Amino acid sequence: MTSDEDQKESGGWVSYRPEIKILDCTIRDGGLMNNHRFADETVRAVYAACVGSGVDYMEVGYKASKDIFPVAEHGPWKYSDEEDIRRIVGDNDTSLKLSVMADAEKTDYEKDILPADQSVLDLIRVATYIHQVPTALEMIQDAHEKGYEVGCNIMALSTVPEPELEEALALLVQSPIKALYIVDSFGNLYSEQVSYYQELYTRFAEPKGITIGMHAHNNLQLAYSNTIQAIINGANMLDATMAGLGRGAGNCYLELLIGFLHNPKYHLRPVLECVHEHIEPMRDELAWGYDLPYMVTGLLNRHPRAAMRFKENGGDGDILEFYDRVLEGE
Amino acid sequence: MTSDEDQKESGGWVSYRPEIKILDCTIRDGGLMNNHRFADETVRAVYAACVGSGVDYMEVGYKASKDIFPVAEHGPWKYSDEEDIRRIVGDNDTSLKLSVMADAEKTDYEKDILPADQSVLDLIRVATYIHQVPTALEMIQDAHEKGYEVGCNIMALSTVPEPELEEALALLVQSPIKALYIVDSFGNLYSEQVSYYQELYTRFAEPKGITIGMHAHNNLQLAYSNTIQAIINGANMLDATMAGLGRGAGNCYLELLIGFLHNPKYHLRPVLECVHEHIEPMRDELAWGYDLPYMVTGLLNRHPRAAMRFKENGGDGDILEFYDRVLEGE
Repeated sequence: MTSDEDQKESGGWVSYRPEIKILDCTIRDGGLMNNHRFADETVRAVYAACVGSGVDYMEVGYKASKDIFPVAEHGPWKYSDEEDIRRIVGDNDTSLKLSVMADAEKTDYEKDILPADQSVLDLIRVATYIHQVPTALEMIQDAHEKGYEVGCNIMALSTVPEPELEEALALLVQSPIKALYIVDSFGNLYSEQVSYYQELYTRFAEPKGITIGMHAHNNLQLAYSNTIQAIINGANMLDATMAGLGRGAGNCYLELLIGFLHNPKYHLRPVLECVHEHIEPMRDELAWGYDLPYMVTGLLNRHPRAAMRFKENGGDGDILEFYDRVLEGE
Repeated sequence: MTSDEDQKESGGWVSYRPEIKILDCTIRDGGLMNNHRFADETVRAVYAACVGSGVDYMEVGYKASKDIFPVAEHGPWKYSDEEDIRRIVGDNDTSLKLSVMADAEKTDYEKDILPADQSVLDLIRVATYIHQVPTALEMIQDAHEKGYEVGCNIMALSTVPEPELEEALALLVQSPIKALYIVDSFGNLYSEQVSYYQELYTRFAEPKGITIGMHAHNNLQLAYSNTIQAIINGANMLDATMAGLGRGAGNCYLELLIGFLHNPKYHLRPVLECVHEHIEPMRDELAWGYDLPYMVTGLLNRHPRAAMRFKENGGDGDILEFYDRVLEGE
């Protein structure tokens, strides 16, 4: 049952907690469903809706290495070159901040991330698997020295042995990050598990003044409710995407999150309009969102790639045979 | 944060709570999307999957008055006549129990609900709006005297003034009901609100040995997570439907719920197969499930009928104009 203290901490039902910030990652996470090839019109519409809705950050894409990922094979939001971003946002004379995600070992960060004063970007989010933490720490330091806000996402949390996780947290909270994200890459966590991990993250992060962030996936239809749980537990950086657009089962729906938060600086209408006019019309082609194959990989704590393959083959295969294959570790 | 005591009460993460029972209401709630006209093959497949999966109850339909609702205008699961049920289940020589829903003031319960020893039905669930509670109490008594298990669903909870609700609860727990359901008809409740109402229901029900049940709708994608929250809070009767099939945004997904509960008597495979083969193929025609119009009615705590009308008109109308109309009380 909810105690009075919890009520106060979470901002109550009618009031709000002003520290909470929303990051829209529609184009960044959604880009994983179309190889980062969005029409400029779509990216512009998402940007306009982010500005109009009062969202705090918009993540425009990845900063992938052009040596590792040939430019001819991917759309522009795989690389998020400065000129591509500026084609959409100009000098971004708005209160919306912009971010990119930089994957450890997949980014030529020394040269591809410009000094902050030469860029419209405000935030660099370093994404790392547990075995890449030393690389992530160097990337964090680099971005910090270039003048950016920096965040860190430890991916695939639900598969990391706890001693390794604790060691990683101890290292990361020594770095100049502003936010440390709980990332449920496989959409496997229940609310109580979110609370469990968040207690662990908070124990390391709080003494350093580092905020906890939440990035959820919707394989078990829990992306939004787990984000609410993270809010209740004190998280103040929240990832969401319009219509949940994102890899596989997708993410926490931005329109649900804005509907939940009562901060008057957020406005639902621009998001409703953008979802209806620009995002939902892509659903048939991009095929993100909760369904049975993604539920199976989430339930069994696996990467969604097996489900993506099942769906590529028409999605009308034998669901029990698929379940058995995933169960056996495909 | 989750305390050790909560862990124990909820059955922990790996263990389970044997008292929990699942009621599948796919055909009953789903019937609201096709005027109760399912092919016998579909009803038979759902019945077989319920038996195979170890679900405790299957709700086959309503017991609507044929005087109020002419038979020519509705499918058989609006009335759930004994011979229609037996056409599907025979004498139901299985451990699955069968139920129907009887709406207060819409049921000729004296004649249409047979004595239990003449019926394959086991459970009568009386559904009532707050102003119909006296009628509901007579129906509960009638069903009890005829030899059935009886449950009661107070509908549209999120619109009931609290003094009226408390008075209703005080009356209902004096009746011979086995379970009292929290019914989020409009899909409006957040987890903390579920906990709030559940604490209230439990205060009345627990001293009488009456179980709390949960019936959730998915307008805010919280049907499943709110059901989990109800479990954590002690609910032991859980409604769910295959693929969430149900009115409007639909219900808690049975396959998610079975995936969550670790009681070895439940089996996921028969449900996966039934969803894939029989339920999902109906989605385009029946058009249930979370979407923007249903989210708007859920968020604003309204009956989904405005969203159903918006969708009937092709669903490509002006979403902002729709939002404004619902906001103004359409």
